[in-house]
Amino acid sequence: MRAYDIIQKKRDGGVVTEPELKFLVGGLLSGEVKDYQLTAFLMAVYFRGMSDDEVVALTSTMLHSGTVVDLTEIPGVKVDKHSTGGVGDKISLPLAPAVAACGVPVPMISGRGLGHTGGTLDKLESIPGFRVDLSLDDYRRLVRDVGCCLIGQTKEVAPADKKLYALRDVTATVDCIPLISGSILSKKLAEGIDGLVLDVKVGSGAFMKTREQATTLARTMVAICAGMRKSVVARLTSMEQPIGQYVGNALEVMESLDVLEGKGPADTVALTVELGAEMLVLGRAAKDLDEGRAKIARSLQDGSAREKFGQIIAAQHGDRRVLDDRSRLPSAPKKTDFTAARAGRVVAADSEAVGVASLLLGGGRLRAEDGVDPRVGLQIHARLGDVVAAGQPIATLHHADRGVEDALARLHKAYVIDDPATPFAVPALFVDRIAG
Amino acid sequence: MRAYDIIQKKRDGGVVTEPELKFLVGGLLSGEVKDYQLTAFLMAVYFRGMSDDEVVALTSTMLHSGTVVDLTEIPGVKVDKHSTGGVGDKISLPLAPAVAACGVPVPMISGRGLGHTGGTLDKLESIPGFRVDLSLDDYRRLVRDVGCCLIGQTKEVAPADKKLYALRDVTATVDCIPLISGSILSKKLAEGIDGLVLDVKVGSGAFMKTREQATTLARTMVAICAGMRKSVVARLTSMEQPIGQYVGNALEVMESLDVLEGKGPADTVALTVELGAEMLVLGRAAKDLDEGRAKIARSLQDGSAREKFGQIIAAQHGDRRVLDDRSRLPSAPKKTDFTAARAGRVVAADSEAVGVASLLLGGGRLRAEDGVDPRVGLQIHARLGDVVAAGQPIATLHHADRGVEDALARLHKAYVIDDPATPFAVPALFVDRIAG
Repeated sequence: MRAYDIIQKKRDGGVVTEPELKFLVGGLLSGEVKDYQLTAFLMAVYFRGMSDDEVVALTSTMLHSGTVVDLTEIPGVKVDKHSTGGVGDKISLPLAPAVAACGVPVPMISGRGLGHTGGTLDKLESIPGFRVDLSLDDYRRLVRDVGCCLIGQTKEVAPADKKLYALRDVTATVDCIPLISGSILSKKLAEGIDGLVLDVKVGSGAFMKTREQATTLARTMVAICAGMRKSVVARLTSMEQPIGQYVGNALEVMESLDVLEGKGPADTVALTVELGAEMLVLGRAAKDLDEGRAKIARSLQDGSAREKFGQIIAAQHGDRRVLDDRSRLPSAPKKTDFTAARAGRVVAADSEAVGVASLLLGGGRLRAEDGVDPRVGLQIHARLGDVVAAGQPIATLHHADRGVEDALARLHKAYVIDDPATPFAVPALFVDRIAG
Repeated sequence: MRAYDIIQKKRDGGVVTEPELKFLVGGLLSGEVKDYQLTAFLMAVYFRGMSDDEVVALTSTMLHSGTVVDLTEIPGVKVDKHSTGGVGDKISLPLAPAVAACGVPVPMISGRGLGHTGGTLDKLESIPGFRVDLSLDDYRRLVRDVGCCLIGQTKEVAPADKKLYALRDVTATVDCIPLISGSILSKKLAEGIDGLVLDVKVGSGAFMKTREQATTLARTMVAICAGMRKSVVARLTSMEQPIGQYVGNALEVMESLDVLEGKGPADTVALTVELGAEMLVLGRAAKDLDEGRAKIARSLQDGSAREKFGQIIAAQHGDRRVLDDRSRLPSAPKKTDFTAARAGRVVAADSEAVGVASLLLGGGRLRAEDGVDPRVGLQIHARLGDVVAAGQPIATLHHADRGVEDALARLHKAYVIDDPATPFAVPALFVDRIAG
């Protein structure tokens, strides 16, 4: 087998087999296949795409390049949720404990934020002491004993994906749905899950800007999970404005605590309930979505989800007293309002720009090796469709000493205020559902 | 400037500028741009193509990565010919001395054979003592004093092309017309020429199998030369059967000597006269093609071209006595006939297969680092359209101890004999002409 022939086959629109992908990806790790051959192959994939069979084979190859956690000895159907990344997307924080509180084990290996999107790990780490760098043994133990564990990707997980991603990142081949899907799922399926709920974000703040792109991504990921014999469902949800009331790490933990206390913004709660219901159905803890919704809602109301979150925090070396005393969370020293330049209706809230504003304040990272400031971020006061007066605060920046002017400039561009008499429809939060 | 952005631009169908190409190609040599970025870019070029401006810029960048010989102090308009590679294509051997004998200096930097096509350097080296590894200083001196010099590509010439070609060769991006054109011309234009005649081969034994492909390649190369302010003309010539009577290194030298003695096969002579006429017109030694044809034909008849070849051989350390005593050329110890399996008309002579047959006898190389046996090859007796009896020799293999059975098997597939009553048109040798 020669890398050349596999590249040529893909270049010419042929279907690459699983042994060929194993040769390429295995060869990349062993050095037998050169980086410069892989990147030519990746660019050919960019142009030619991949069939479902190919992308299943690619995912399987990358998955099995590393450790695949075996949770079969833990009773129950293990289910996780994956979001393709949004702004203010803190859903995993209330969701994981709520689902676990309903009896479905949630093994969750998450990522960090990059660019305009935040990451679950960064948010969790704003809880004092919280550790996401547990060993896979500890992870397995906590899934069994607590019903949930939230950690970061370890070096043992999908090393081929790590290498491939690093090459894609410098060759303009990140933005390619088969490669995106394979990358996401080669990490997710290493968790030891039986089922997966996919939250595919669509809109201005999402990686997929159009419904068509998001649908293709969702269908591809559903096909991969099905090909890997995992139960799966994908929801397309709107990312036309930031989710909920807060963007920023500690700020999003606070909002999550609100949700776990039966409060919180309507969209954050709705996403938690809906995605939780899907997880309970996959986890066979609810016979249908309605029962699932009821169970998740009850767990948020009766404190059981909140209690589960406390257990998780404690098990992962965090200070569970944040549940009762939010002053234990880090907070920014300063606040600055971003106000409406004119009166009218908010008709656009470019959430990517909002994400970048938070990043500029220090809440996100441009490069993977950067750190984040857990304290900073934004509180969003006006949502799409709201009518504001001139000078009324649209958002409040929580900040320290950097990025305020730049962030304000971004927000000025992000928010469009129009005549209230002009008809305007607020985009629906739930866009589509694609079952396995 | 970032390699990423340039790759992305090409990926998305944008036009890459000369500074961007200089950054990429210069960065490749300095190490600032990584091999794996270049190959992704090359694959994007494979899919997106290049505009004339881009391919001119690429050629210029690769050309100026190394030494560009300056021959401006030598009087006359310096003209070379480049063939895209054929089987039995020994035209440079009679052509260069004929054109030089007509007063147009011919600075010729040639390549070696690879795969089924032979190379001018290998053919010349079958003349005892002939050296093609002269320095660029010697090359300049011989163009001035003898009017012609035929050497191999030195390390100083277009190092960027060498690096790029090595990467293309292992990433299935060789077969891409803008890259082929840039590679050919970045080497050719380093010779110090003022004009170039391109012989673009088309047909079974050519790299361009269809007239459409050959036309695109010719147009691209003409555009590059024009963009680099060189006078240029391209001829598309048929490669549906081997050129002339011999395929093989010393055997082709013998045929070239025939042509230089005013003899030789009709097609070899016609190509020499026609391409020579084009060179004389570009070199301003003939006012039109008819005058050029007459001058070249005369130089072949009156011995002046032969005498010039003798001067070239002597100046390049070869044994010029081969002109009078062909037994000084190496010859194969054995001969085996390939005979017609049935009576009828030769309607196909797959020249790629004939080239491979010669390669299998040792006359060619599969890898650039292989050597060639100058003695071996084929004498072709029957040409397209000829009627043969069963058992009549179609070709005679000149061979040593290897490859005879394999070569015969190739020839059996290459030659198709049909009913003589079936109408058959011999393909025209001269297919098209594309002027600058």
